[in-house]
Amino acid sequence: MSTAAPPPAAPPPPSKRTRVLRVPARGHYDAATVHAILDAAPICHVGYVTDDGQPIVIPTIHGRIDDTLYLHGAAGNAMLRGIDDQPVSVTATIVDGLVLARSVFHHSMNYRSVVVLGRGLTVEEPDERMAALEAITERISPGRWDHCRLPNEKELRATRVTRIPLAEASAKIRTGPPSDDADDLDLDVWAGVVPWTTSAGAPEPAPDLLPDVALPDHVAAMTPPHGRNSPQ
Amino acid sequence: MSTAAPPPAAPPPPSKRTRVLRVPARGHYDAATVHAILDAAPICHVGYVTDDGQPIVIPTIHGRIDDTLYLHGAAGNAMLRGIDDQPVSVTATIVDGLVLARSVFHHSMNYRSVVVLGRGLTVEEPDERMAALEAITERISPGRWDHCRLPNEKELRATRVTRIPLAEASAKIRTGPPSDDADDLDLDVWAGVVPWTTSAGAPEPAPDLLPDVALPDHVAAMTPPHGRNSPQ
Repeated sequence: MSTAAPPPAAPPPPSKRTRVLRVPARGHYDAATVHAILDAAPICHVGYVTDDGQPIVIPTIHGRIDDTLYLHGAAGNAMLRGIDDQPVSVTATIVDGLVLARSVFHHSMNYRSVVVLGRGLTVEEPDERMAALEAITERISPGRWDHCRLPNEKELRATRVTRIPLAEASAKIRTGPPSDDADDLDLDVWAGVVPWTTSAGAPEPAPDLLPDVALPDHVAAMTPPHGRNSPQ
Repeated sequence: MSTAAPPPAAPPPPSKRTRVLRVPARGHYDAATVHAILDAAPICHVGYVTDDGQPIVIPTIHGRIDDTLYLHGAAGNAMLRGIDDQPVSVTATIVDGLVLARSVFHHSMNYRSVVVLGRGLTVEEPDERMAALEAITERISPGRWDHCRLPNEKELRATRVTRIPLAEASAKIRTGPPSDDADDLDLDVWAGVVPWTTSAGAPEPAPDLLPDVALPDHVAAMTPPHGRNSPQ
């Protein structure tokens, strides 16, 4: 039995299910691109299928450790139960701006998105559960884990952690100006990009915060994950 | 045969499928709340099920006219084909801020989300198709429709418009400060809310924009939809 980590592998080719069909040049399949978008996305949307075949899409936050995506929620959470050992799609999207073309038809958005297909698996091992909760917390609020009271036994019993391997994923990225038809270039219509940026406002202390608790640096410096890095 | 519009009905009770189970007080089912969140959300995430039972979640933009949600895309778009006369879930989420509690366990987000369940139906009627495209364009970029070259016959043939009735939908909203356990209130841990806001940056003219095309007011004033209204 080997305990050594496997050597880094070349990224797998996209599966038929994850290959970007619409504007193929916008498709990316390397782990670095997929990971960067997952790490920068504020939240993700998780799709599962009920017993009667109805798809349900639920927003949640996520964390990542290496090639594994983690979700969490209440132990009885319907979405986490719905993806347990079942097929799941997790999609994370960042909108970077509006692309305004001369024609309505060529309007678009600049965006970065990842679609992950896989199966959810409830994590039972205590160290992996705690590491996942730390990854989820630290991705959205770096420095928070070491500042707070950590989960106790009762809270951990009330929490489900679910693992989804990042084995089948694709990214889709659009950047740059509009692509108008040549015939439209001399129209008297403004064309270009309006960037969108998300920023953190002034922290609002809880009404019951003790007066001698100072604002820590990690909160004062907090930036939304999609505000930390500009798109390429 | 009556052509009169039906009288406004009281909002239907939530279906078993759309009732908010986790923190029921955060659930809302009235049309005004559902519509306001759909109108303010930058994009939505659409879930459908492939023939082999795999859920797929795809980001897209949406528009709304009264009680109907509209999506659009290329005529052969896999997602729009996947939801045509098939069950679909459309979920739109706005994150308004991070909720930082004394305990890791009570961390949360302030958010507004809507989950719509229904069936997609490809729209064939020309006036409804054009009205849907206008609603999608104007929701994300008010004033844009009248400024641009409108879709021509060839572009309309290349475009699919899909209707989803807003008959089964629920909203979930969290606002306000963290809710820490009483035992944690005297910890030396900063607690409160860090609001997130999305704003538009300076418009970036297309490199091939004719030099005499001025920046129109509707672009200069453009604000992301989720930046136009604060949460309650």
